[in-house]
Amino acid sequence: MDFSTDANAGTTGQMMYSWIRDLFPLNRSITGPDTRATLRYLQELLPGMTLHEVPTGTPAFDWSVPEEWSVRDAYILDESGRRVIDWRKHNLHLVGYSVPVNKEVTLEELQSHLHSLPEDPDAIPYVTSFYSRTWGFCLTHREREVLPPGRYRVVIDSQLSEGSLSYGEILLPGESEEEVLLSTYVCHPSLANNELSGPAVTAALGRWLLASSNRRLSYRIIFVPETIGAIVYLSRNLQDMRNRTIAGYVVTCVGDDRCYSLLTSRRGNTLADRVARYVLREHAGAFREYSFLERGSDERQYCSPGIDLPVASVMRSKYRCYPEYHTSRDNLELVTPEGLFGAFEALRRCLWTLEENRCYRATCLGEPQMSKRGLYPTTSKIGSASSVRAYMDLLAYADGETDLLALSECIGRPFRECVARARELAAAGLLEESTIDRRRYAI
Amino acid sequence: MDFSTDANAGTTGQMMYSWIRDLFPLNRSITGPDTRATLRYLQELLPGMTLHEVPTGTPAFDWSVPEEWSVRDAYILDESGRRVIDWRKHNLHLVGYSVPVNKEVTLEELQSHLHSLPEDPDAIPYVTSFYSRTWGFCLTHREREVLPPGRYRVVIDSQLSEGSLSYGEILLPGESEEEVLLSTYVCHPSLANNELSGPAVTAALGRWLLASSNRRLSYRIIFVPETIGAIVYLSRNLQDMRNRTIAGYVVTCVGDDRCYSLLTSRRGNTLADRVARYVLREHAGAFREYSFLERGSDERQYCSPGIDLPVASVMRSKYRCYPEYHTSRDNLELVTPEGLFGAFEALRRCLWTLEENRCYRATCLGEPQMSKRGLYPTTSKIGSASSVRAYMDLLAYADGETDLLALSECIGRPFRECVARARELAAAGLLEESTIDRRRYAI
Amino acid sequence: MDFSTDANAGTTGQMMYSWIRDLFPLNRSITGPDTRATLRYLQELLPGMTLHEVPTGTPAFDWSVPEEWSVRDAYILDESGRRVIDWRKHNLHLVGYSVPVNKEVTLEELQSHLHSLPEDPDAIPYVTSFYSRTWGFCLTHREREVLPPGRYRVVIDSQLSEGSLSYGEILLPGESEEEVLLSTYVCHPSLANNELSGPAVTAALGRWLLASSNRRLSYRIIFVPETIGAIVYLSRNLQDMRNRTIAGYVVTCVGDDRCYSLLTSRRGNTLADRVARYVLREHAGAFREYSFLERGSDERQYCSPGIDLPVASVMRSKYRCYPEYHTSRDNLELVTPEGLFGAFEALRRCLWTLEENRCYRATCLGEPQMSKRGLYPTTSKIGSASSVRAYMDLLAYADGETDLLALSECIGRPFRECVARARELAAAGLLEESTIDRRRYAI
Repeated sequence: MDFSTDANAGTTGQMMYSWIRDLFPLNRSITGPDTRATLRYLQELLPGMTLHEVPTGTPAFDWSVPEEWSVRDAYILDESGRRVIDWRKHNLHLVGYSVPVNKEVTLEELQSHLHSLPEDPDAIPYVTSFYSRTWGFCLTHREREVLPPGRYRVVIDSQLSEGSLSYGEILLPGESEEEVLLSTYVCHPSLANNELSGPAVTAALGRWLLASSNRRLSYRIIFVPETIGAIVYLSRNLQDMRNRTIAGYVVTCVGDDRCYSLLTSRRGNTLADRVARYVLREHAGAFREYSFLERGSDERQYCSPGIDLPVASVMRSKYRCYPEYHTSRDNLELVTPEGLFGAFEALRRCLWTLEENRCYRATCLGEPQMSKRGLYPTTSKIGSASSVRAYMDLLAYADGETDLLALSECIGRPFRECVARARELAAAGLLEESTIDRRRYAI
Repeated sequence: MDFSTDANAGTTGQMMYSWIRDLFPLNRSITGPDTRATLRYLQELLPGMTLHEVPTGTPAFDWSVPEEWSVRDAYILDESGRRVIDWRKHNLHLVGYSVPVNKEVTLEELQSHLHSLPEDPDAIPYVTSFYSRTWGFCLTHREREVLPPGRYRVVIDSQLSEGSLSYGEILLPGESEEEVLLSTYVCHPSLANNELSGPAVTAALGRWLLASSNRRLSYRIIFVPETIGAIVYLSRNLQDMRNRTIAGYVVTCVGDDRCYSLLTSRRGNTLADRVARYVLREHAGAFREYSFLERGSDERQYCSPGIDLPVASVMRSKYRCYPEYHTSRDNLELVTPEGLFGAFEALRRCLWTLEENRCYRATCLGEPQMSKRGLYPTTSKIGSASSVRAYMDLLAYADGETDLLALSECIGRPFRECVARARELAAAGLLEESTIDRRRYAI
Repeated sequence: MDFSTDANAGTTGQMMYSWIRDLFPLNRSITGPDTRATLRYLQELLPGMTLHEVPTGTPAFDWSVPEEWSVRDAYILDESGRRVIDWRKHNLHLVGYSVPVNKEVTLEELQSHLHSLPEDPDAIPYVTSFYSRTWGFCLTHREREVLPPGRYRVVIDSQLSEGSLSYGEILLPGESEEEVLLSTYVCHPSLANNELSGPAVTAALGRWLLASSNRRLSYRIIFVPETIGAIVYLSRNLQDMRNRTIAGYVVTCVGDDRCYSLLTSRRGNTLADRVARYVLREHAGAFREYSFLERGSDERQYCSPGIDLPVASVMRSKYRCYPEYHTSRDNLELVTPEGLFGAFEALRRCLWTLEENRCYRATCLGEPQMSKRGLYPTTSKIGSASSVRAYMDLLAYADGETDLLALSECIGRPFRECVARARELAAAGLLEESTIDRRRYAI
């Protein structure tokens, strides 16, 4: 696993952006044909990925898999027969999981089923009603304000029926059973930052991992509908995940050009948190840290009591914290190849840091004789070279329990330098990796 | 146990004040008939309270019960036969535990037995000599300065003899054996804030507890002479108290109108301390916190090494920290119905907080499906209601080990709201009380 | 062991200074006759000290004992036969462990074997090459600059051959097996602060300990060549040192008049660190604290992973942090009797603090009755004497696990007062020493 062998920023960023452009028009929801089509597209990018179908009604913790939803058409006709709202023009026009409707209503009746944003009058909001049967349309506030009184025909040619919930999963084994989780979601229609940036960056990370020989850690990469998908997935894999996961990241909102964000795990100091903090500070410069009280995606499940996985979220603009969130303005103009690549790099560095974050123990008592190994200047003079000091500091603090990331903070040197120096010391037989339970450090 | 069903401030405050007025003239000491009379008066207020008599000479840890002291009369006559000091005018004129005397002395001899306060020349100081046989009189400094040279007859018609030490105790069982201690003292003659405010507020709290159905916790309320009484009581009840006490308060100096005070337990972070800090901060606003180094009442015994009970003191003006302390100016003008009621309320809220400070555990893995229980808005929109957030935060942090008071600080919501929301979640089957050993949280 | 019975500052300081003056001319190195002679001189000062000889080639952890080095003469002749550098004039002129040489070289060839300090042109630097066979001369930069081109004869009449490494050791048993380590080094030629101040102050401390009857703790005092000597010593004594050492100090750079310094152990909060911090703060006033990252003497071995002894360094000007360090200017003018005595006193107070740092437990439950033991004013008045408060505070916090040093910080009184008061309380039967494993507090 070589940190320095990646494609250049332009190529990788453009590649991710093109995937998003391809997937943007699909009408994803927590179930349905377009969600399935999205997963198939991702499967092409990640050979070896398995698609799973979980039938309607299957129980999962406190939940059960809902009926599958599909839409053929949806519109509202005015008295002249003109489509005043047409789902074919924008997926967001239809409230997610709307039941089938075909009836005439007055404007007054219609209003109670309309959603718009007075404070952002040119944007269509994103609204769903997964667990309460209803129907509705979303439109810009300007469109809404000019609807004349009168009668309207509402047509929703949708279907809610026995079917299945779909998700994708790929397990990449490494030398160790210790596992890193990457989880992203596929359930939002035509939303770019708060949906497609996640699968795109995750797929690119997966492709990089697939291309990397000699993975030390194993990786579990999943594409699930948010909330219900994570719950279904956990209900089927909890034991393995509990036994193996040393760190994980929810990949969401990783596409715009703005500040980086970290949403920590519940406890806030798991290995996932520590690594993300280090990477964002060192490589991305400034970032905003949010506490778990600001959570909003699938870490809600992964970090819940009794599940307790060490999972954080590394983001660009966090969901709910940017003005375009959950509106039609979260589109292909908001995400950029550069924004995507920046997040990809931050997460790739997190994975690399996890890979290299070994625990070492000094092999001999007292300081080793560095000079006989060519690791020490042989003539003592005032002062000593920085590299020698790095060697000696690593040896002096390598107690077999402190991981390299903590050692790096302790001795005040960059993690990358510590990795390189520790490798040299291990090659010289002066450090050995200690086989501690890294789960202790995970949570 | 309903927090909101108490009498109004005026009634309760006036009631406590009238008890203090009744008891003020009695010549309490660590033993004796007036201490016993005080306890009988309190027994009337608290049906079910038991009075105990412990004979002179009974050993108690490093101590033994002293002889009982009683006084029939005490005065000093000048050469003309006039009573220049007369105990019948003020109990404080006589040094506590003065031995019987009837003799003539010169002014010079007399001076070595007189106590006054040059810096507060109109106040009579409060002086005792429980464990060293002597006699003395206290007077204002102005009175002392005008005593003419000459001969004086000193008469102290007191008695020190086999008898007993008296204390009162009432145990109020609750659903749980977990117990809260309220301890106050009866041993100071004619002192209002630093004596009678304590028994008055404690009696009012006891009456409120007696009237409360469905107590979850048990209560141990004791009225003891300070120091020797607490030691005697502990020596007879230590095992039970150690096994059961989750928190306790020494009730003293709870009658004036000034700032609230907290004197913490030795370790400073017991459940008693945490609850008192929360209550004083939220309900009483500003307060002064004193460390255990400033201790001075029976927490000296309760928190001593080997006893280690989680006991703090919630006060208004702390003993030693107000100018009237231990003088005749600590009288019925210093304490007020409002001051008493404020302290009563603070302590009642402490008890209520202890009652409601449960530990909860989430019953299902992952987030529960709130909508099927009517606890969630069914149509997702931008933002979410505060009440939903409170539910979800409680569920997200309810690990079965963090008590509601800590959860309240963690999620940044008032304890009362957490109590209400947690009850709703428990009623919906989403939280269950965890049966942990609350003693872990007590100390 | 009486803290107050020491000689006066002048005598003790002068005595140490005279030892340094005697030993200054010797050509110490990590082995060799002058190191041995130095140890014999110290043995005279410390009757009972054992000298050990460890043969060349003896393995010690990652090292082995090097060949023994001795020098008869060393100089450089110019073309006229004049000694332009003469080792007989200053030991520092010859690079430590220089191999024998007798040959003619050009100035250019010679330059690569010369060491000088352009930034300190009147000082001869101190240079060694213990583990890489080479030779060299050190000189002032001014001398070097005026060397004319031409041919020079280099003569080093030295010997490197089978021999032994020498060290001195004295074990002073006390009532307890708990042991304090004092370690200093003998291996630098003609350097005063960064060498001879260490053995001189250590010898004076040893003489004070020898003269002290009733030592509670045992003492291990060693004089070893730096690094290799400490490693050899540890390799022979590690088990005992691990089992017994509760604190230790490396004694180095204890001779100048400047600020005091503390270099902490690796973990920074061992008993050795805590005691040194207290003593330097209370008795020496301001001091500089250095982290273990600034280490540079034998604590590098004592605190290394797997050895983990609680060892710190109490110094005046720390090695590497004063301008004369490792040059001919670290001489008899830099160290002073006053500087030596100050360091001696600081370390002596550390030892005294360790001796007196007992753990006490209150013997009775609740407060004892002080009056019946004459430890309490018998007539209660407003306020209470400071001594009574000290008694009561010690009793209130004496849980058998908190040592006196921590109690002293907790109750805000000087350690010396706590020692005296605790003794009085123990004599009165109110405190008893608790037999806890002090190693718990050491590391």
